[in-house]
Amino acid sequence: MAKTYTNTFPLTMTSSEKQETICIFGTGDFGRSLGYKMLQCGYSVVFGSRNPQMSSLLPSGAEVLSYSEAAQKSDVVILTIHREHYGFLTELTEVLKEKVLVDVSNNLKINQYPESNAEYLAQLVPGAHVVKAFNTISAWALQSGAMDASRQVFVCGNDGKAKQRVVDIVRTLGLTPLDQGSLLAANEIENYPLQLFPMWRLPFYLSAALGLFFFSYCVLRDVIYPYINEKQDSTFRLAISIPNRVFPITALILLALVYFPGVIAAILQLYRGTKYRRFPAWLDHWMLCRKQLGLVALGFAFLHVIYTLVIPIRYYVRWRLRNITIAQIVDKKENPFSASSAWLSDSYVSLGILGFFLFVLLGITSLPSVSNTVNWREFRFVQSKLGYLTLILCTAHTLVYGGKRFLSPSSLRWGLPSAYVLALIIPCTVLVIKFILIMPCIDKTLTRIRQGWERNYKYSKSALNGRSDI
Amino acid sequence: MAKTYTNTFPLTMTSSEKQETICIFGTGDFGRSLGYKMLQCGYSVVFGSRNPQMSSLLPSGAEVLSYSEAAQKSDVVILTIHREHYGFLTELTEVLKEKVLVDVSNNLKINQYPESNAEYLAQLVPGAHVVKAFNTISAWALQSGAMDASRQVFVCGNDGKAKQRVVDIVRTLGLTPLDQGSLLAANEIENYPLQLFPMWRLPFYLSAALGLFFFSYCVLRDVIYPYINEKQDSTFRLAISIPNRVFPITALILLALVYFPGVIAAILQLYRGTKYRRFPAWLDHWMLCRKQLGLVALGFAFLHVIYTLVIPIRYYVRWRLRNITIAQIVDKKENPFSASSAWLSDSYVSLGILGFFLFVLLGITSLPSVSNTVNWREFRFVQSKLGYLTLILCTAHTLVYGGKRFLSPSSLRWGLPSAYVLALIIPCTVLVIKFILIMPCIDKTLTRIRQGWERNYKYSKSALNGRSDI
Amino acid sequence: MAKTYTNTFPLTMTSSEKQETICIFGTGDFGRSLGYKMLQCGYSVVFGSRNPQMSSLLPSGAEVLSYSEAAQKSDVVILTIHREHYGFLTELTEVLKEKVLVDVSNNLKINQYPESNAEYLAQLVPGAHVVKAFNTISAWALQSGAMDASRQVFVCGNDGKAKQRVVDIVRTLGLTPLDQGSLLAANEIENYPLQLFPMWRLPFYLSAALGLFFFSYCVLRDVIYPYINEKQDSTFRLAISIPNRVFPITALILLALVYFPGVIAAILQLYRGTKYRRFPAWLDHWMLCRKQLGLVALGFAFLHVIYTLVIPIRYYVRWRLRNITIAQIVDKKENPFSASSAWLSDSYVSLGILGFFLFVLLGITSLPSVSNTVNWREFRFVQSKLGYLTLILCTAHTLVYGGKRFLSPSSLRWGLPSAYVLALIIPCTVLVIKFILIMPCIDKTLTRIRQGWERNYKYSKSALNGRSDI
Repeated sequence: MAKTYTNTFPLTMTSSEKQETICIFGTGDFGRSLGYKMLQCGYSVVFGSRNPQMSSLLPSGAEVLSYSEAAQKSDVVILTIHREHYGFLTELTEVLKEKVLVDVSNNLKINQYPESNAEYLAQLVPGAHVVKAFNTISAWALQSGAMDASRQVFVCGNDGKAKQRVVDIVRTLGLTPLDQGSLLAANEIENYPLQLFPMWRLPFYLSAALGLFFFSYCVLRDVIYPYINEKQDSTFRLAISIPNRVFPITALILLALVYFPGVIAAILQLYRGTKYRRFPAWLDHWMLCRKQLGLVALGFAFLHVIYTLVIPIRYYVRWRLRNITIAQIVDKKENPFSASSAWLSDSYVSLGILGFFLFVLLGITSLPSVSNTVNWREFRFVQSKLGYLTLILCTAHTLVYGGKRFLSPSSLRWGLPSAYVLALIIPCTVLVIKFILIMPCIDKTLTRIRQGWERNYKYSKSALNGRSDI
Repeated sequence: MAKTYTNTFPLTMTSSEKQETICIFGTGDFGRSLGYKMLQCGYSVVFGSRNPQMSSLLPSGAEVLSYSEAAQKSDVVILTIHREHYGFLTELTEVLKEKVLVDVSNNLKINQYPESNAEYLAQLVPGAHVVKAFNTISAWALQSGAMDASRQVFVCGNDGKAKQRVVDIVRTLGLTPLDQGSLLAANEIENYPLQLFPMWRLPFYLSAALGLFFFSYCVLRDVIYPYINEKQDSTFRLAISIPNRVFPITALILLALVYFPGVIAAILQLYRGTKYRRFPAWLDHWMLCRKQLGLVALGFAFLHVIYTLVIPIRYYVRWRLRNITIAQIVDKKENPFSASSAWLSDSYVSLGILGFFLFVLLGITSLPSVSNTVNWREFRFVQSKLGYLTLILCTAHTLVYGGKRFLSPSSLRWGLPSAYVLALIIPCTVLVIKFILIMPCIDKTLTRIRQGWERNYKYSKSALNGRSDI
Repeated sequence: MAKTYTNTFPLTMTSSEKQETICIFGTGDFGRSLGYKMLQCGYSVVFGSRNPQMSSLLPSGAEVLSYSEAAQKSDVVILTIHREHYGFLTELTEVLKEKVLVDVSNNLKINQYPESNAEYLAQLVPGAHVVKAFNTISAWALQSGAMDASRQVFVCGNDGKAKQRVVDIVRTLGLTPLDQGSLLAANEIENYPLQLFPMWRLPFYLSAALGLFFFSYCVLRDVIYPYINEKQDSTFRLAISIPNRVFPITALILLALVYFPGVIAAILQLYRGTKYRRFPAWLDHWMLCRKQLGLVALGFAFLHVIYTLVIPIRYYVRWRLRNITIAQIVDKKENPFSASSAWLSDSYVSLGILGFFLFVLLGITSLPSVSNTVNWREFRFVQSKLGYLTLILCTAHTLVYGGKRFLSPSSLRWGLPSAYVLALIIPCTVLVIKFILIMPCIDKTLTRIRQGWERNYKYSKSALNGRSDI
């Protein structure tokens, strides 16, 4: 994936005298790629190296000097060296004094060291203004220009001017700087590239647990039960029939879990009579995961839709339909049209389709580029109003699916109800609580609390003062 | 949803002397959240309050002073106070002279006051440089960092330097500033967060009207007619069969309406012989709604696809197919294979699928992040060429669906043709006009007009001069 | 599509003295639109024109002067004139000395002139600092604010300060500047708006070739063969049956071709023992097209899914199923349930659905706005791990589809195997090679090479030095 450095790319002409010079310590893969990109964007680049005369593969146009010579040429020094080798910098404290020292390093594990690399660096070279940056960008992305992954560069540092210098460089390289505050944020920034979907972990484990439970439950009812009672081999149901029960159930429960924390929070606020007390940590985390929960639910709903649509193509279904027709002819049974069956079947399907349609809409509006173009009121309208409508439609879809069989004793096997009956518990709970919460008397109190009113608040002038502000 | 303020987040160290100080008037929810975020991003924050000694809940690290003391500490004053309380500022005109005064306020209704809050503020404090900003950002988003809704901050103001100061602050906070020009734009900026999908209103009402009309039409033909003439209960058709007629019809008409204003504009330009005259307002608005019209049409097309794919699962369809088979056996009818029926059925389905596929492609390219990566020529290729191909395929799909029955008198009920026949009127009109417009002789004139040529133009030197420029 | 200029839009007040003045040479469509936008964003605008007293249609608030008078009013001159008319600038070299001269021009053809317009301009006016910018923005987009196509403005120039001036202007207009380096990049920037999906060309031609080949192959086996051998008219298969063979085959092969260059690159690196040698140009190009190849494959997979789901609606399928039922009744054949057939049919469908689901996930994560929010590790996890899983599932889907018939001589027609057998060659090759490459011994060597180790490297101090850096 690496390219050797060539001169075919446009490097800056030397016509202008005002070029800024940037110093890069270290001539590894990342240092060279960064230097190359900087030359391309009009900077002069000086590499600092232990053995300047032996460094190879450096981009043409860049100078290579010893560390201290190189540092003297620029007031910005970018350190592309592993943390373990920072030791030599202690000898350069004089040269690096008042310079902007940029730490780009990453670790191999999350929280590998007690303090972040950037803070460690700030302790080593106390005179320099340490700024953390560039650690989310890969050497390959810099070289090839294929910035598919991310253009975001998190920047943090204690000195505002130093940080601004780095932010300007980041922007000139065509990347997107994101100011993260002081150097205390360096730890989080260093952990970021090591993370693997942290916000997706809870939704993932939750859906895996739900999926496994309902899969076992359905296997028990639909495969083991008929095998024991009727010696019937239904193992082929493992491929489509049972997944197509597990997927919609998981989707519905996860969708309800998206709206559950909201009603819990409302109850807490009503109970406490104020919005100015922190929620418990689990509720906070749950609320921040809602988008991911919803998207996982959408994935399961999508699978449910396709698994349902292939039903008529399946060998088993065709065989069964053929047998029904044949049996009817052989037995010369009447086959009267039941309008109520048609109504039940059609409305159950229709509710499901409409629910899925709204669900897809919700998914599309949660795409970053789409949600960026709507204002706050529109976003809340979609995610709250349309979201609840989706939940109502999907719950109704499941209820009507049950239809006449719902809770009928004949559908119990070993005393176990059908899986979809269990699936309805959480959605119905959420909808009932929400229904209570939007009743005028309760809704009014809640709205006042959310606007800053507090039940047990001692009315002081300052309080009134605060309330009149935005 | 609110968090209490804690010290666990990295606030800027006090090591650097060069920190900028920002003054915030008002200690309400938004003021505190903004101050908190500013401290995090390395600013010093001074709150101005009526009762500085009684203000509570303020982020740690921020000072609280009286209004005039606070204002003296910074040359940027952010006003997080409701418009009704602006009165006290008249006493501070001396202190606020030459300062950047940022108005973040919103109203409760669109055009609530004769002039925008920011313009009102500029009248109250004539010596200050008023800049409008931050009104699209919510306190909750600032605190939680969950910028799902929008990072866009519209900025406007009469003084260029003051505006630039605010733009820099916005960028440092990790938000996206969008310069909207002078303070005259404040009105629009203040209305923005109150809007609920303004560009979607026309498409929404249009599709609702079309949908309702065709729903009633189909109920008349497919439910009421058979009930009156054959005493047959077809109400179950309301759930799937009739929606699945209404959806494709609405989708096709809306898609045609996306391309209709373009051909009207072309005719107008041909008739007027110039492109330098404004279109009527309704045509302008229609043209600006085209993307939304197309996306609503795509929604209906999506529903049509799923409603069609579930057909074989429906109770009614299975019952009917079984009865056909049984009748054939009982009557010992021959059932010869009709190649022409197979052709008609397959090609109608195939055209529909291809049309839907292109439609989805159009939808994907209209996502903001996708359309941002294509150049102007590519965008026009997709939206114009592929768009017309989609319209052609969908119109052909509907025509072939009619097949042999098309306009046959036997399909008339009470003299009313099938609904799909009506649906074809607008699409066919658009396609015919477009076909005429792309005929070489007309296309040549139109291209010249669009390049700036004018039929009745008095050829002066200046005209020729203008024409040679880009 | 053009609007006449009106005064209804907020133009900057004249209250502030510090307004920057920008000079625009040329009063054509683009010049006027740019001037209009600049006035809106708070700049003063002076137009330079050959006949200042005769220029019409200019935005109100702008001054019009002769070229040399206008140039003296500002240190930024934007040239909105066609390259052919640049001649007159040679007379203005004195006035333009040390000024920022912005070239916005485009050509009609790619590489129309030996050197780019901007470089030509730099030769004509050697004293000015030429910057290339704004060529990707259309006049219509500037006027209407409908920036649907693109907000990206590529900027390049040899003088850093001049470039920064232009970058600031671009940002103030609400557009996104992208620094492209020195003026050598102007050629590429000028070609950009003329390109029509350059990265999609290879995937498009490849899929067209594959599609055509397999279409002909299937026509031979499924239409011509039965016609010659059994005089049977199967032409109706051209509409759905044959496309639904061609689409999945093309999709599978294209998906395999996404992962093919990766394994070739790995083999090359293993063979060469280093990553520091450039890949052949065709491999480089292939690797850069992978995303597009994958998305085209996803398009074909999507078509395959819908073509498959409509199967039960087709006239031919209903006719055939009816005939099977009737034949069974007439012949009084037994119709025993085959659990193995049910297993084969269900697991083949299930594998396909899961493969398609992952494929859609891959497609969504390749949307620019989504891939921008994941870090490098997450992006690689999705595109590599999930990608291979998708390939494995889709290959297994095809293998199980073959099932018992796979390679059975009875399915040969004129010695030709079924098309899906041919489709498996490339995917299986890729998977087998990948399987070998991830065996521990080979994987270890490959990982070392990718971390910078070289087999034939003379270990010098400088080499070790380089290796310890990032």
